[in-house]
This record gives sequence, C-alpha cells and structure tokens, in this order.
Amino acid sequence: MHRTHTCGELTIADLGTQVVLSGWVQKSRDLGGMTFIDVRDRYGITQLVFNADDNAEMRAKARELGREFVIKVSGTVIERTNKNPKIATGDIEIKVSELEILNAAKLPPFMIEDETDGGDELRMKYRYLDLRRNPVRNNLVLRHKMAQEIRKYLDAQNFLEVETPVLIKSTPEGARDFVVPSRMNPGEFYALPQSPQTFKQLLMVSGFDRYFQIVKCFRDEDLRADRQPEFTQIDCEMAFIEQEDILNLFEGLVRHMFKNVKNLDIQDFPRMSYDDAMRLYGSDKPDTRFGMQFVEATDFVKGKSFPVFDNAGLVVGINAKGCASYTRKQIDELTDFVKRPQIGATGLIYMRHNEDGTLKSSVDKFFNEEELQKWAAAFATEPGDLVLILAGENPDKVRKQLNELRLEMGNRLGLRDKNKFAPLWVLDFPLLEWDEETERYHAMHHPFTSPKPDDISKLDTDPAAVRANAYDLVINGTEIGGGSIRIHDRELQSLMFKHLGFSPEEAQKQFGFLMEAFEYGAPPHGGIAFGFDRLVSIFAGLDTIRDVIAFPKNNSGRDVMIDSPSTIDDKQKVELHIKTTV
Amino acid sequence: MHRTHTCGELTIADLGTQVVLSGWVQKSRDLGGMTFIDVRDRYGITQLVFNADDNAEMRAKARELGREFVIKVSGTVIERTNKNPKIATGDIEIKVSELEILNAAKLPPFMIEDETDGGDELRMKYRYLDLRRNPVRNNLVLRHKMAQEIRKYLDAQNFLEVETPVLIKSTPEGARDFVVPSRMNPGEFYALPQSPQTFKQLLMVSGFDRYFQIVKCFRDEDLRADRQPEFTQIDCEMAFIEQEDILNLFEGLVRHMFKNVKNLDIQDFPRMSYDDAMRLYGSDKPDTRFGMQFVEATDFVKGKSFPVFDNAGLVVGINAKGCASYTRKQIDELTDFVKRPQIGATGLIYMRHNEDGTLKSSVDKFFNEEELQKWAAAFATEPGDLVLILAGENPDKVRKQLNELRLEMGNRLGLRDKNKFAPLWVLDFPLLEWDEETERYHAMHHPFTSPKPDDISKLDTDPAAVRANAYDLVINGTEIGGGSIRIHDRELQSLMFKHLGFSPEEAQKQFGFLMEAFEYGAPPHGGIAFGFDRLVSIFAGLDTIRDVIAFPKNNSGRDVMIDSPSTIDDKQKVELHIKTTV
Repeated sequence: MHRTHTCGELTIADLGTQVVLSGWVQKSRDLGGMTFIDVRDRYGITQLVFNADDNAEMRAKARELGREFVIKVSGTVIERTNKNPKIATGDIEIKVSELEILNAAKLPPFMIEDETDGGDELRMKYRYLDLRRNPVRNNLVLRHKMAQEIRKYLDAQNFLEVETPVLIKSTPEGARDFVVPSRMNPGEFYALPQSPQTFKQLLMVSGFDRYFQIVKCFRDEDLRADRQPEFTQIDCEMAFIEQEDILNLFEGLVRHMFKNVKNLDIQDFPRMSYDDAMRLYGSDKPDTRFGMQFVEATDFVKGKSFPVFDNAGLVVGINAKGCASYTRKQIDELTDFVKRPQIGATGLIYMRHNEDGTLKSSVDKFFNEEELQKWAAAFATEPGDLVLILAGENPDKVRKQLNELRLEMGNRLGLRDKNKFAPLWVLDFPLLEWDEETERYHAMHHPFTSPKPDDISKLDTDPAAVRANAYDLVINGTEIGGGSIRIHDRELQSLMFKHLGFSPEEAQKQFGFLMEAFEYGAPPHGGIAFGFDRLVSIFAGLDTIRDVIAFPKNNSGRDVMIDSPSTIDDKQKVELHIKTTV
Repeated sequence: MHRTHTCGELTIADLGTQVVLSGWVQKSRDLGGMTFIDVRDRYGITQLVFNADDNAEMRAKARELGREFVIKVSGTVIERTNKNPKIATGDIEIKVSELEILNAAKLPPFMIEDETDGGDELRMKYRYLDLRRNPVRNNLVLRHKMAQEIRKYLDAQNFLEVETPVLIKSTPEGARDFVVPSRMNPGEFYALPQSPQTFKQLLMVSGFDRYFQIVKCFRDEDLRADRQPEFTQIDCEMAFIEQEDILNLFEGLVRHMFKNVKNLDIQDFPRMSYDDAMRLYGSDKPDTRFGMQFVEATDFVKGKSFPVFDNAGLVVGINAKGCASYTRKQIDELTDFVKRPQIGATGLIYMRHNEDGTLKSSVDKFFNEEELQKWAAAFATEPGDLVLILAGENPDKVRKQLNELRLEMGNRLGLRDKNKFAPLWVLDFPLLEWDEETERYHAMHHPFTSPKPDDISKLDTDPAAVRANAYDLVINGTEIGGGSIRIHDRELQSLMFKHLGFSPEEAQKQFGFLMEAFEYGAPPHGGIAFGFDRLVSIFAGLDTIRDVIAFPKNNSGRDVMIDSPSTIDDKQKVELHIKTTV
C-alpha cells in the first residue's frame, strides 16, 4: 500500500496513529541530530522527522534525499513542538520508522515554489514541473470545479450535454480553419470546428430543446497572450425562447458559479445597449468596476479658435477623480501613453480643478475661466479632479483612444480590483460591420444571428443601421460570452447570406443542410457561448488564459514540451494524398 | 412567451389552468366537428382539441396543420373523455383558444415515429429528423445522464478533470493518426490524439494524483459498425496506487452508473486471467452472461484412428445444454456457420446425449459407447445435451473458432439477454504480441505498460511469456475499458522501447519528453480508459455505437448530412504549405 493518508489531512486528532504517506520532498533541514523533511502531494504538506538517536542509518538516508525525490514513509503521528498555523497539518509531524525512495529526481531546472525563478520558456518546456507549483495547479483545480458547477446548474435546468463532431466541414466565413486531410476521401479535408454553431442549431431543429457542451474549439489565427489555437467554450442553445429568457437563465449560471465556487453574491447584471457602451466607454466591453464615463464636449468647446477642437469630429473626455495634483511628469506620461502608435492620439488636453477651486487647463490661451466653468459643469468636477480630453477627426477612433486612457487611469487609481466583479450585458449589437479589406459587410456575430424584426426593412437601404438580437456578457471589461437569437426561417437566412456576399450557389454548398433543415419544422431558438478559458482566468484573477490551460501552446502555436508540430513520414503524406511545398 | 409548460407535464391537477404550449405536430385526427392534434416536444405529448362549434375558423386552420409543423397554442386544461394511460398527460387535453404557426414543415422524408420507414442512409442524411425520434433521442439523454454520473462519482473520489490538448504530435506507434498541417510552422503537422496517454502520465508526474477526462479521441482506421473515426473515452489515471486500487475504484464507478442510471445492483465483478479467458472461452473478452465453457478433449480423443483428432493440435468443445433434439438441419446450419471463411473451421463434430440416456456422435465409427462415456463425463452432459467439438492444428485458431460457435449458440439459446449485465475483469495480459507483418513484437496495450516485476528478466529470453500489469473490463463480451500500471522509471521505459524495435534516437525523438519527465520524480501510477460510446451502447442495449452518437460518420468516414469531408480552396492549401496529389 502506498499510503493510508494524503499529505494534507493529518491533524492533532490523529496523534499516535500509524500512517503511511507518499509524496515529493519539498525541502529538508537539519537541526542537531534530527532531519526534518516536508513531504508534499496535491493535498498538502506534512513534516517528517528523522532522529539519529532512533535510527542513525535512516536519518543518514533522509539527509541524502534531494528536492522532488518521490518517497514513501511509515511512521507515527506525533505532536509538533514548533507548530505551523499556516498549514492544515501544522500541529503534527510524522516520526518516521520506514523510508523508501520510490523514485529519485534530478535537480529541477527551476524552483518548485509559489514564486519561481523559472522564465516563461523554461516553464513551458518543463510544464509538468511547472504544474507542480501551487498557483498553477490551483488554477486547474478551480477550472475543474467550475466545469462541475456549470454542468450541475445546466443539468438542473434540463439542458442535455451533447457531443458534436470535431471532424467537420471547412467554411470560408469567419477565422481560418484548421484542416485534416482525409485518407479515405482523396483530395478532401475535414475542418476542426471554430464552434459547434450549426450542429447546435440542428439539435434545436431536432427538438433537443436545451443543449450545452463544454467543448474544444479551434481557430488558426495569429496568437496573442489571450488566444490559443485550441480553446474551450461553454456552448449553449435553447428553443422556444426569447432574448430575455436567455439573459435570465445565464445570469443564473454566472451567479451560481460565483456563489458555489467563490462564495460571492453577484447582485446586479446591468444592461446597456451597444450604442451606449460605445458612447460612454468607447468599447463594446466596458470595464464597469469603475465609473469615469465619457463626457462629450464637442458642442461647447468649438469656436474658441483652438484648431484641435475646431477641426475635430469629436471632443470627448473623462473626469479622473482626485488627480488634480498630478505632476507635470505624470501628465507627460499620460500624454506619451495616448500618443503610443498602438493608441495613436495626437495629444492630450487637460484641466485641473484645483483644491482651492481654481480651474487650470493646458489650453488656457483659448479658454478663459468662464469657459472652463462650462467644462467643470459638464464633467461634474469637484476640487481635486482632473479632466482629460482627447479630440480627433474620426469619432470612433477618438472613443477607442479614450477607452485606453480610461482603463489606464483605472489601473493607476487602483480601480480595477481583481477581487471585485462587475458583469454587464451589452445588447442590440449591429448585425453587420463593414470590412475595409474585403469591401463588404461581415456578420458582426455570425451569419445565423437574427436581425431585429423592425430593422429587416433597412437591410437594403441602410445595412449598418440594422440591429441584431445579439448580446454579450462582459465581466470586468472582458467579453466572456456572446450569443444571439438565431434565424430559423429559410428565406431570412438566404437573405442574410445574400447580404454577406454569398452567391446562392455558395450559400447552398456551404450551408444548404442548415437551410434545408429549416424547412422541416425549425423552432424559434437562440443561444450563447462562453469562453471557458477566459472565465476561469477571471475567476483566478489572471490577465492571460495561458495559466488556466494545462498544456498551452506558445505564440508560434508550438507545444515546446512535446515539440509539436513536427514533420511526418513521407509514407503518411502519400496515404493522405498530400505533399508539403517546403 | 412561447410556453408556460412543456408538452410532458400537465396532469389532472392542472384542470382549468390557462396554458401556453409550443411544439411539433405529431399527428392529427378529425372526429365530428372536432380536430385533435398531438403536439410533441422533448418532454412528451399533449393532446389539443379544436372544436368547430367554438371557433370554426381556428378549427379549419388546425385541420391544415401538417406533420412536424411548429405551433404555439394557448388554451385551457380540460379532462379527457377517452383517457390514455400510456402517456403522462393522458388524462387531460387542451381546449385551444389561440393557434399560431411558428414554422411550417415540408413532409419529412421518413416517418418520425419510434418505428420508422427510413433506411440508414436517408436517416443519416436527415440526421436532425432522425434525432426527433424517441429511441434515438433517448440514447442521447442516456448518454448525458451517464456522463453526469461519471463526473459525479469521480469528483467525489477526488479526481480532477483536466483538458489535454487536441493538437499534439504524430507518433508512429499504434493506429494511423489524423494530422493537421501547421500554417505557422511550414512543413510540420499536428496530430489528433488517439488517446491522451502521455499527457495523463505527465499529470501524474505533476502530482495531480487523480485525473480524468471525458474526451474525444481519433483514429484513422478503416471503419466498421462499432468504430468511428472520432470516439469518446473516459480517460483516468491515478498515482501511488496498485492494480487492486484501480480495479476496486472503477468497479465502484460501473456499479454507481448501473445503480444511478438503470437502478440495477451489479453484485459481482469476477476476475479471470488472460490465459484462463483464452482457455475457457477462446477470447480475451468472454461473454459471461452464460457458461458453456470450453472443455479440452485432446487428451482423451486421440489414438482412436480418427485422423481429424489424431492430427489436431487441439480438440476442444462445448456442451450446448438442452440441444440434443437439434435436427439434422440445425446441426448442418452450425456446421456451415463454423465453416464460413471468416471463421474457417474445417468441420464440426457433435455428440448427442439423448433424453433416453444413449450417446450418439457424428463419429461413431471411431468412438464406441465406452469412449463416448468419457466425453459425457468430461463435458458433464445430462440427457438432452449436445456436445459440439472443433479440432485443428493451431490451438489459438481453434479456440477463436469455438468462441464464435459458443456466441452463436448463446444467441440461439437466448442466453445473451440485453437486460442482463455480466462484468468481468480480465487480468495478466501478455506484455507483447508478435506481429507477423512487421516481424517484430508490438506492445499489446501500449509501450507505457509495465511488465510484471518477476517477468522482466524474461524480456530477453522469452518475450512472449512476459506478463503485463494490464487489465480489461469486459461487460457481456464487449471490452469497455482497459488499462495498466505504467512504467515510471526511465531505464525500464528505454528497455521497453528497445524491445519494441525503437532505436535510441527514435525513442528520444518521439518520447524523449516523457522519459525526461521520469527523471524529475515520477510517482508509481496507473490508469484505465473506457470506451464511452460502447458503454452507452451497452446500457442502451444496442449492438453498434452509431446510435449513441449525435452526428456519426458512415463507413467511409463521411458525414453525409453536412457533406464532409470536402475540397478546400487552393488559397488555404498555399497558406498551409501543402498540395493535394489527386
């Protein structure tokens, strides 16, 4: 037998018990004729004590144990002299009577401690060692727990988890597909799903009524810190529902998870239209942990001979509460921030509402006290506040720039607390967005999203004004879920494909099966998909998804641990009817 | 609002309630001035009644509703005159006050009934309609329930579900891989996992202690009824355990599922060595719902001048209880059965133990009454029994042939009851098996399976005699799970690769990461993987896995519904650095 207990469970109640423990050597130290060893497993750490007076030979063996050796010990639970209140087993130690080395260990390439000295690449290469560290393993324990709670909630709500295929069909819409050459169908390819979208809609046509799946999806995109070629979605679909039903049911899911995983009560799920979100935050995923909403100043700042404002399409700013005392250097930093190429503002205008009540701006040449009073009123400043203003020709761009500045100010002011959670539904997204590159409209969510019935008539005349029955759930400025009420009518679906630039033949070839399915009694339906990796990272208080994934890939899509992707045999290529061109 | 209730929940307790229901028209019939319509959803069927006296126009509209139309009705729950005790809602009907057609439906290409007139190909093409049928949907409801119960049990046992990558590395060992060309790494490929084997072992090295995953796996093999290119495993691994721990814990899982899903108590999980299974049943996955064990007759039938026996390497038979009355025609059928090319026996010898106590064989010329008495004793026959005997040069082949005959007799005698469940652990598998084609030994389970410590010394001298710490769980003659205690020592793993014909360089290239991991403190570990599709099909009493999979592929690996695989754009191929050769 390898153990009677784990390394995390023995307490003062077990005094005198004969036990067997197995685990890894965390650290060891000598004290007089004694050696103390911390043995670790997933469940905790227990202190072992070897006394030379009892057994000099075994104590000598214990002194030879290196970090990360795998050992098995038998012994008696005794009370510790120096208790450690920080760990669950801190009141006891094991007086060891037998010691067996189950496996030796080379010195790890980095410290297996909460704070490690290993760099990113090294930790990725030895991911199996990185996973031994508490913070990393805890993320995956959290992930497991969240998945269990999701299933528990949705099962109780009559959702059925149905596995949809991984080997599906490549479609030109959306991101790039990963493809899989077929051996049995020469010259043809499967694609890996970017989402199970069409299958879940077909399940609604099948009368499955409520479907979900926690499922791997795939996108062959260029990677960033928060993107992986394979990622996990909580994919859901419901029939005979309206948008309101979906919002309520999935608010319930998120509430259930916060309650059961983090013991937090989330009260409000405010709702905001896409238009308001863009107007007030310059983003369709505003971080509402803090206010600092945009104030538009265009109307009252024009005509004072300040060319930057006079030539602007939009002048818009925020009130940074309590920042009037910012030094020149701090203001310069903010100016540099907004002028960075990836943000692209031309400059930053500010106004201090000083503690003594005076108003002082960077454009005093153009705006006198009386004019600045208008600013103070519009931005609702109080003594001590700092107004930050951007201006530019293109209102959308200015708003995006100010969004970045607002988030930066939130960071500087400590308003983006990782232990605070602010959910927000963003509603009424545009159905279509213009793509400069391809010079046509694309579906903002996907081609299966239904337009608002009142807006259908605008599809021909003013496509950009058509709103969709689409919604995103945002938490702390991160989009964690999005969905829509779908089209369930063949004619409307055909019309959508037409507006997306599909020829009738293309539409038929790619999605004929779905449109045909709509002719056999398709119910009204809609759904939502959550990015599970992101949701876990938010629960874990992390900025990237990489550390909530057991074996992530790097920014070149490589798994540096197993060294994948890799070349394959020519024989394999012949069987698959392909050649490589490099 | 689309509904206040589902179509499966209204009862006599709801009389007088105003309700809204939505669903599909199952069927309709006229009776006098009334039209009755059965409306169906996932939860059940409710009868609607339209009375011309109340509303002639609406009744006329109801008469026009075709099968599978999607409708929404408002109305009052009233008591039925002709109650239908077969359905949960059979005591009531809805007196409809409003009728809305949510979507029309074309006539389905086959009947949406429990017994359908649709052929396999048609049902696959319109899978979304086939999924509307109760028996098919019930399989997927069962599958959902089983997955929930698996997770519940394993979570309670401290297992963590960890998602392992889908884009991994191709390895030459085992079945053919599906591969995925990498855009970002020209000329290189990912492979889809045949199982997460190495990752789950690395998780044990990481100290995850208990891992599981319900996970899609992929094999590019030629397909049969019970094989799909993508299939689902319940994949499990544990550290600091011995074989006994695994057998006990997963007996518990299977017991839990039978109890909680089918309300069945499974008492015994007998155990049998591989050698005994082969000797007594000619199969490493015997169907133990019935006895009919093999009896070896070689010793006592030789030397009676019957060349078939005298030249045989093995003479072996079964006692078909109560079959002495089989007609000549029935015996001829059995002879034809064993002589079929896929079975390949040269003939069938039999002995009747007649009801009057006399013994009568097909080889009376060579065996007198006294000799046959020996047969009767060996086969423990009673009056009424029929002994069936096969003989041949190669004992393994004869056993396989007799296994087929035994199963056939089990079928004929009705001994393979789909509502009876007989689990069996088969233990002590050989580590290696000789492959005629490649003329080398292959790992019977996989290269990571540990040999029995006592047998390691035989690896050089008698490789075929080395037994493995490997086990299969068989239910009703189907292997539903298999696993092993793994190697966790670098030296032993290297030795295994050597015996499997890997050069040290190949072993390093393919599995270097795993062997290196073993040097950093790998604990003893082992695991098991269950074929989830098969397990569900056994619970559902089905012979193939196809109907427990929502969207299966046909025998050419095609999804005929979405028409996949398919050709892709040349642009995609260029981006992926590949060309097709057809």
